[in-house]
Amino acid sequence: MRKSLCERLIAVVKLNPYSTPRSYTIMASNGATPPVTVQSLNPKVLKCEYAVRGEIVSVAQKLQQDLQANPGSHPFQEILYCNIGNPQSLGQKPITFFREVLALCDHPALLDKRETNTLFSADSIKRALMILDQIPGRATGAYSHSQGIKGLRDTIASGIEARDGFPADPNDIFLTDGASPGVHMMMQLLIRSENDGILCPIPQYPLYSASIALHGGTLVRYYLDEATGWGLEVSELKKQLEAARQNGITVRALVAINPGNPTGQVLAEENQRQIVDFCKKEGLVLLADEVYQENIYAPDKKFHSFKKICRSMGYGDKDIPLVSFQSVSKGYHGECGKRGGYMEVTGFSSEVREQFYKVASVNLCSNISGQILASLVMSPPKVGDESYDAYLCERDGILKSLARRAKTLEDAFNSLEGVSCNKAEGAMYLFPQIKLPKKAIKAAEEAKKAADTYYAIRLLNATGVVMVPGSGFGQVPGTWHFRCTILPPEDKIPAIVSQLTDFHTSFMNEFRD
Amino acid sequence: MRKSLCERLIAVVKLNPYSTPRSYTIMASNGATPPVTVQSLNPKVLKCEYAVRGEIVSVAQKLQQDLQANPGSHPFQEILYCNIGNPQSLGQKPITFFREVLALCDHPALLDKRETNTLFSADSIKRALMILDQIPGRATGAYSHSQGIKGLRDTIASGIEARDGFPADPNDIFLTDGASPGVHMMMQLLIRSENDGILCPIPQYPLYSASIALHGGTLVRYYLDEATGWGLEVSELKKQLEAARQNGITVRALVAINPGNPTGQVLAEENQRQIVDFCKKEGLVLLADEVYQENIYAPDKKFHSFKKICRSMGYGDKDIPLVSFQSVSKGYHGECGKRGGYMEVTGFSSEVREQFYKVASVNLCSNISGQILASLVMSPPKVGDESYDAYLCERDGILKSLARRAKTLEDAFNSLEGVSCNKAEGAMYLFPQIKLPKKAIKAAEEAKKAADTYYAIRLLNATGVVMVPGSGFGQVPGTWHFRCTILPPEDKIPAIVSQLTDFHTSFMNEFRD
Repeated sequence: MRKSLCERLIAVVKLNPYSTPRSYTIMASNGATPPVTVQSLNPKVLKCEYAVRGEIVSVAQKLQQDLQANPGSHPFQEILYCNIGNPQSLGQKPITFFREVLALCDHPALLDKRETNTLFSADSIKRALMILDQIPGRATGAYSHSQGIKGLRDTIASGIEARDGFPADPNDIFLTDGASPGVHMMMQLLIRSENDGILCPIPQYPLYSASIALHGGTLVRYYLDEATGWGLEVSELKKQLEAARQNGITVRALVAINPGNPTGQVLAEENQRQIVDFCKKEGLVLLADEVYQENIYAPDKKFHSFKKICRSMGYGDKDIPLVSFQSVSKGYHGECGKRGGYMEVTGFSSEVREQFYKVASVNLCSNISGQILASLVMSPPKVGDESYDAYLCERDGILKSLARRAKTLEDAFNSLEGVSCNKAEGAMYLFPQIKLPKKAIKAAEEAKKAADTYYAIRLLNATGVVMVPGSGFGQVPGTWHFRCTILPPEDKIPAIVSQLTDFHTSFMNEFRD
Repeated sequence: MRKSLCERLIAVVKLNPYSTPRSYTIMASNGATPPVTVQSLNPKVLKCEYAVRGEIVSVAQKLQQDLQANPGSHPFQEILYCNIGNPQSLGQKPITFFREVLALCDHPALLDKRETNTLFSADSIKRALMILDQIPGRATGAYSHSQGIKGLRDTIASGIEARDGFPADPNDIFLTDGASPGVHMMMQLLIRSENDGILCPIPQYPLYSASIALHGGTLVRYYLDEATGWGLEVSELKKQLEAARQNGITVRALVAINPGNPTGQVLAEENQRQIVDFCKKEGLVLLADEVYQENIYAPDKKFHSFKKICRSMGYGDKDIPLVSFQSVSKGYHGECGKRGGYMEVTGFSSEVREQFYKVASVNLCSNISGQILASLVMSPPKVGDESYDAYLCERDGILKSLARRAKTLEDAFNSLEGVSCNKAEGAMYLFPQIKLPKKAIKAAEEAKKAADTYYAIRLLNATGVVMVPGSGFGQVPGTWHFRCTILPPEDKIPAIVSQLTDFHTSFMNEFRD
């Protein structure tokens, strides 16, 4: 009996290497705590990777500095950032109505001035007044309720109702500084140890792997099927869930990214129903990353929120725990720097919800400009409003241009030797596969780099085009990809295509087997 | 030998109850993951407490709803929030210059309009143009560098240099959404397990205990000496450090809050030097919460940053790891809702700094309005600027009024039977001690509440005045306190004093031993 207990304890310590009492080993000889080194940092932090801002970006920043200091020092004039979903950094203009409202809420004294009526649209003034009336004391500089300003949550809930045709409760909304802090919060709540797993798509947006690593959980991969346009097959979900459970992992949640990042697919309604049933049957929390809900380019595709799917299947609030993430960073507005967003949290008991609230409270509240913007995104100008025509023109101009850019880049990738690229049905990315010659893979090995990283760095050094290697997002072992955003200004797309084509041809000529 | 290993392992498991492999026990009978319950959430979350937005605030919100629905339903007309450092929620006006600049940066199209010159001060226009020029592509809606916009960090570094008289490096600045995310980040980096401890003052701002709990570390308390005006004695630090080390805790950092929250003291320069030497000798990271650096009311006191103290002692960047937190939420500006702030990180190796950068990158960047505001706070209008006189009038009006309010409330507390209150030399709080009669303590026990919570709830129900019980901040066992902000509008202070006095008299009459 004693032996068996001891053996179990040995197993526990092996499972959790961090539980070794470190104080026995790391005391400095003079009794002081030894200096902070990388080795003495939280190992969860060391384990975390975040490719979107990784090595490629550092190289790009260095090249940019070179170009500024010594124009002509490289065979290109500028760095073309196709690595990150950051539209306004690439020249996309903000929606005028949104910025008018923000400016008026930032400096409400403007509302008392006559000149304001000539400088601002009538409906932006009306909206700013409405929002200020929703804020206790009109204090846009005060901490709000930990979930966000109630009146803004009312507006967002109405927007969700209008989108889905099903009721939404403002008390289910937690406003957040972009979607990322919401994702972290859910990981923090659900993950107890490395025995807790989260099912994530591969390829995935690396926020998920990073956040799971930071909170000490286990990433349980499910692979999207590239051959069927990055299809999300329930058979694959089942297979990976079973395998994880056999390894002693309690799988607590499933992440679905729709439209997909980095893969750009839009899930079919029937597929979403299968995913919901799978989560219901297996007891999983459904974490629905729906931040690209406005970015749909394929005419035959439509966005359906997972909440709408659940409700249309007859599942009510008690039936399935579901968290839907939305952000002001994406869509046609692309207000990344404003750090606004929300999560709609349904299907948890009130006791569990109290814990969500407590965690939200520790950070007090999300930023008020971001909160206001989240309400605007979910309730833009309507027919009859003074700004409506201008808004529509700005919005559709952006979305139509993104659709054109997606098509041009998709065609360009598909015309390259050994490259195949699925359609970008939505989101802001293409994730082409590249079949690299063995010689190139060998050259990469010699350079101690993953083969896709090697290609991406060569591309960057030759053309100034920045794309993120697929290994940062995960891919089927032995395949190579990169993520390319569709965001560079439309007039620069032809140059990107031609530089990419020239580089690729010369790369293949160098390495072709 | 075997037995001794087993005993060690038993000790490990006792130390870390979370390391038990949960997957053996929590699988539901049908094989599905069981539903999310409070018991199945991350136990670190359950352990975390956050008093500032706890029970008292819930009761206050309910009373406020009552008053709105049924005016006259309580013996007071309004809720007087003295519980949270949220100046603008209590009517404090924002600094005009700051808001002008924010509005112009939010809607840069205004800068092309003639009317703008009559609506905005000349220096706010100039500053907005300067800031826009510092932002690549003038894109205030784009994600920035993960540490924040370089030009804004330059401005902040200059502000620090002007404040301290020692150099500051913009590469040491990490802009954050208020100070709280910076504190969380440091805890995340430093805490590996419950064997890692952080020395924190008691009483403390509960962000620290909450953050340490969320990251699974151990709070190592050191007590501030109430008898010497909440003095921070190095002998006490030594005593607690030794005790923690004897319990197998690796103490990694010391938190110093200066000016103090909730205690309002301003550390003397000599005391700060002792603290620096203590951290240096013991190998501790010094986490300096300096968010109240502008809030000094005692004419004989002055704020000195810990960085200035270190440098003036001859300690350079290599000698001592130091993180200084600053926020736009406090000071005279009180822009809590804007969620701006920064941490200045010095004394770590470049490899460790890379890990800081990586963690900052996972959340992309802090919000740009908050970033801009942080630069404004560290570089307000100067002599000769059009806004200077108005700015000075607004700033000094607020600070002088806060000083008067602090004195009035301090005197009021000291006039109450059994209550003694140290001076608020700085920050925004008083932390009076109340000697509660035994009968009151017994009544609290019967109501299953801490005695100070019992008092605070009775006070709230009788008067509408909201104060946070001392137990939320920590206090010497057997003593009772509450935290009262000095923020209610000056014209409401007399009513608060009179209601508090009446309540206290009647409470003491009810319970006097």
